[in-house]
Amino acid sequence: MLLEQIRRPEDLKRLTLEELEQLAAEIRQFLIEKLSVTGGHLAPNLGVVELTIALHYLFNSPEDKFIFDVGHQSYVHKILTGRMDRFDTLRQYKGLCGFVKRSESEHDVWEAGHSSTSLSAAIGMAVARDIKGKSNRVIAMIGDGALTGGMALEALNHIGHEKRNLMVILNDNEMSIAPNVGALHNYLGKIRSDRHYVKAKEEFEYLIKKIPAIGGTLAKTAERLKDALKYMVVSGVWFEELGLTYLGPVDGHNLPVLMETLKQADKVQGPVLVHVITLKGKGYSPAEADSHKWHGISPYKIESGQVLKTVGPPMYTEVFSQAIIELAEQDDRIVAVTPAMPGGSGLTKFAERFPKRMFDVGIAEQHAATFSAALAEEGMKPVFAVYSTFLQRAYDQVVHDICRANLNVMFAIDRAGFVGPDGETHQGVFDIAFLRSIPNMVLMMPKDENELRHMLKTAAVYDGGPIAVRYPRISGLGVPMDEIMKPIPIGTWEVLRNGDFAAILAVGPMIPVAMAAAETMGKEGKQVRVINARFIKPMDEAMLLQLAKEELPIITLEEGAQMGGFGSGVMEFYSNQNLLGMRVKTIGVPDYFVEHGSVPEQRQETGLTPERLITELKALIPRKRQRA
Amino acid sequence: MLLEQIRRPEDLKRLTLEELEQLAAEIRQFLIEKLSVTGGHLAPNLGVVELTIALHYLFNSPEDKFIFDVGHQSYVHKILTGRMDRFDTLRQYKGLCGFVKRSESEHDVWEAGHSSTSLSAAIGMAVARDIKGKSNRVIAMIGDGALTGGMALEALNHIGHEKRNLMVILNDNEMSIAPNVGALHNYLGKIRSDRHYVKAKEEFEYLIKKIPAIGGTLAKTAERLKDALKYMVVSGVWFEELGLTYLGPVDGHNLPVLMETLKQADKVQGPVLVHVITLKGKGYSPAEADSHKWHGISPYKIESGQVLKTVGPPMYTEVFSQAIIELAEQDDRIVAVTPAMPGGSGLTKFAERFPKRMFDVGIAEQHAATFSAALAEEGMKPVFAVYSTFLQRAYDQVVHDICRANLNVMFAIDRAGFVGPDGETHQGVFDIAFLRSIPNMVLMMPKDENELRHMLKTAAVYDGGPIAVRYPRISGLGVPMDEIMKPIPIGTWEVLRNGDFAAILAVGPMIPVAMAAAETMGKEGKQVRVINARFIKPMDEAMLLQLAKEELPIITLEEGAQMGGFGSGVMEFYSNQNLLGMRVKTIGVPDYFVEHGSVPEQRQETGLTPERLITELKALIPRKRQRA
Repeated sequence: MLLEQIRRPEDLKRLTLEELEQLAAEIRQFLIEKLSVTGGHLAPNLGVVELTIALHYLFNSPEDKFIFDVGHQSYVHKILTGRMDRFDTLRQYKGLCGFVKRSESEHDVWEAGHSSTSLSAAIGMAVARDIKGKSNRVIAMIGDGALTGGMALEALNHIGHEKRNLMVILNDNEMSIAPNVGALHNYLGKIRSDRHYVKAKEEFEYLIKKIPAIGGTLAKTAERLKDALKYMVVSGVWFEELGLTYLGPVDGHNLPVLMETLKQADKVQGPVLVHVITLKGKGYSPAEADSHKWHGISPYKIESGQVLKTVGPPMYTEVFSQAIIELAEQDDRIVAVTPAMPGGSGLTKFAERFPKRMFDVGIAEQHAATFSAALAEEGMKPVFAVYSTFLQRAYDQVVHDICRANLNVMFAIDRAGFVGPDGETHQGVFDIAFLRSIPNMVLMMPKDENELRHMLKTAAVYDGGPIAVRYPRISGLGVPMDEIMKPIPIGTWEVLRNGDFAAILAVGPMIPVAMAAAETMGKEGKQVRVINARFIKPMDEAMLLQLAKEELPIITLEEGAQMGGFGSGVMEFYSNQNLLGMRVKTIGVPDYFVEHGSVPEQRQETGLTPERLITELKALIPRKRQRA
Repeated sequence: MLLEQIRRPEDLKRLTLEELEQLAAEIRQFLIEKLSVTGGHLAPNLGVVELTIALHYLFNSPEDKFIFDVGHQSYVHKILTGRMDRFDTLRQYKGLCGFVKRSESEHDVWEAGHSSTSLSAAIGMAVARDIKGKSNRVIAMIGDGALTGGMALEALNHIGHEKRNLMVILNDNEMSIAPNVGALHNYLGKIRSDRHYVKAKEEFEYLIKKIPAIGGTLAKTAERLKDALKYMVVSGVWFEELGLTYLGPVDGHNLPVLMETLKQADKVQGPVLVHVITLKGKGYSPAEADSHKWHGISPYKIESGQVLKTVGPPMYTEVFSQAIIELAEQDDRIVAVTPAMPGGSGLTKFAERFPKRMFDVGIAEQHAATFSAALAEEGMKPVFAVYSTFLQRAYDQVVHDICRANLNVMFAIDRAGFVGPDGETHQGVFDIAFLRSIPNMVLMMPKDENELRHMLKTAAVYDGGPIAVRYPRISGLGVPMDEIMKPIPIGTWEVLRNGDFAAILAVGPMIPVAMAAAETMGKEGKQVRVINARFIKPMDEAMLLQLAKEELPIITLEEGAQMGGFGSGVMEFYSNQNLLGMRVKTIGVPDYFVEHGSVPEQRQETGLTPERLITELKALIPRKRQRA
């Protein structure tokens, strides 16, 4: 095995072209085997094997800066930079991160997780290099999907303006996670199909000679005509107009051609874009056949490509998937909007059932939010389906375009709370804090998958402005499901367990944690009230006033940032009521970024457990003892 | 006066071309006169007089949807839709809004304030129209500056994909607020200078006939050559490649030509972009000469264009402007980043002094943040100067790229708190809530302009990660200024007034409010402690513990959203310390969007006044009486 000899990029440089090609095959085999056990981003990495080898062969990391957009396609880079032995721990607690991670290696210079940041990183690093008087290369690798993200286009505009030396590698696999959409995608498609024109340069030169010599007023026009030829010989006029030199398209799996093009790009003065065509899932037929499914994959059987499924209750996403179709059947104002996540957000079936009411806008969260606002403005009922962590991208649009105008946009916020193996870049722990402080927002979280259905109905019939349902990236509890969805009165909570020792106000998946703690306490004769705080905003004010009247100490529990979270809202309510001195203990995610692992491990680490709750309950001074 | 006869758009349609041109002149005169008294966005509106007249003359608002990007260029639209009489109240409390406002008129269909939302609005309205089976026009007017905003590019990508009927009017005045930057700007400049090629179409056709007839392998190539001619005859290939039909460029002050082009555009199937060249400030020579200064202007003398200045202490922005130059002289790692606001953010002098360390990235807050992150990653000390309300656009980048990676980015957050006449779209009232809950963030606000200097020094020498100074859009207090800037120990507060009746923890400009209330209370024998809570995060824990030890009731006061604000942070601290039952009353901006007016009026309306504070203080049960 060549692979075992590669401990650092220098080891590559000794290999022949044939050996590099053999190495590529070995890396593919390694990834297919390792990920069959751990799961992970298989298809994106199979697509960039040759590209990553070429970069490390030709250039000198870490002096040269390799920037991976998103970073889920950095596995090959990790293998080539001495981390092969850690792949058994991929995406596991304290194990190898599934993204670029500076603490893992000096070769990891730019961390991400969200898309479209690499071009901003590249121009930042190029500017810093020039100010410091250095001459290293800066090379960003970005997918065609990520290119539609607004910040990538903002960065392209800046890159073209600055004219500094940097290389953008457009890794064009015609996919983001889902098949790519948008005009830019169509444009790239046009370039791809025009590939033969690159070879036609000589023909054009022959042709231009046939144009008779022209003087006088036509001379300038003829000059312009020659300019036009450049548009044909160099396909990427869209990029050229922005000030980047365009090279390509080139086959990303043909190592000699790819390396030749990269060498050529390296000689270009100023920013250069190399358009590389790759096949997501390359070399593993199940992944080639359905690269969408194999973007991020659970453990599977290598032979058949069969994914090993765990049997259990449906995921919240699946419940949403079904419910939103039922709601759309009842209300033809309902349309769905997704920023490039039709599958992950559970909208694939909706798209089949209502193709004209489904809008995948590409990786474009900002636009998705404001597009939804305009739809609502005109009487539609848009459902903006988005992961909690990606909704961060649309914060201003939620404030400025949706909540300020108080428009009837419905948010389906998936992956709220801990997300497990994707780790710190993807945790959905801030949305309560950032949404709660925006006026006009209604925010809910269900106690189980059955309540999710009722909340979606609640949101669908609500016409008072923006309303959001957040739900976690886990399975439901396996509760019986009501066939008919019924709206829940806005701002009402429910008591799940009685008691007068203390009250726990718990949100969503923290309710079973609260119930477990309450049961243990109950056995010791201390009855703890457990309340399903299903409306994070507005709160159940009657119930809060009742708790104050009883002078019950309160513990709030949420799988979201404690700072500014639901618990703070409870304290603010009492402050606003001039009910000062209420005893409220707020428990949430502490003030640091929580790394990858399983959700139970993440809860354990952050103290969102029955054991912690029992400790806190026991520390409380029971009601009416402290205050007069 | 023709103007007085125009009460609604229908009244326009009776006028002759000559009368329309006279009307344009009258509108200019009206704007110049009215705004000399009220102030307002003069230059942008002078630039769109003919354009707005043409739209209302040719098309039918409100059935046809006119969408104004940002909306500060909607004054002419307001005049033509029956609001002429209200211009004396422009941007004043309960007066005419300076932006598009749905509650003012049925002709106002899309509200904004922040840039780059109009294209998302347009495609949203076009989709809703098509779903509803209607056939109205959707027309978005966007500036060349706003076009660089990422969400506008996201929307273009979607517009080109959807291929629905809508019109984009690119109002190209070569400016955003500041002179425009970026590759896209350069591209537009190239089109403008190529204008004569539009007329050269016939020449090209003559030329192409000169190419001899070609058969065989060259036939397709020749076809392609003809395609290339289109690139020259139609200048806007960049937009054409995205799927929009491009028309222009056309002189935006030549009514007949402009109207002819708009009529032509109206016949195009699918999305069409009309490139209109306008002159910001057109018709008023001082504004034409310096349209940057005249973008938003204070009251002025019409004859001379002299702005009526109020004498007083320096604005916080000016103090920042000077201090950042001093800091950059001391530390050559310091570079400045602004998203198209070099003037408003006080970086004009910095740019003169350090042209190679100044980066205006265009209207591109997301990129600005991540570009700053990369600069910091490479050892620079970037100062990201941004208005509080526009920082909302970069929320995800602050979380994901700066705070998660704990990079040494320094934020200079201007316009924090109430902003006065710009009103609800621009209030800087959310940044405390959305920044405070992000791990690793340090957040400060000074009590006066002298402390701002020390805080900027604090931030400049801090190397523990991201650090932000927020300051208001008002003048300083006129305090003496220290020549030498000295860092303030992180997380320390200061007691400004002693007392043991209660403690007020006040932030920034709320300190004088607190002091005034404390003085009044003092005269009644109730001594109130006033604390300058200059670090919003991290807090002065020793001081908070001392307050708990003394069992002092606490009032927190901030000019920011009460929900999730600084006050909530105080309560969270006591919760974390298991100091339950502390009496904390949090006062901040209540949970609604506060409209335009003066800052004192906005404070009055929201209860951020000494009077309110005195009422709250008197309602407190003094210390040690309530608890055992």
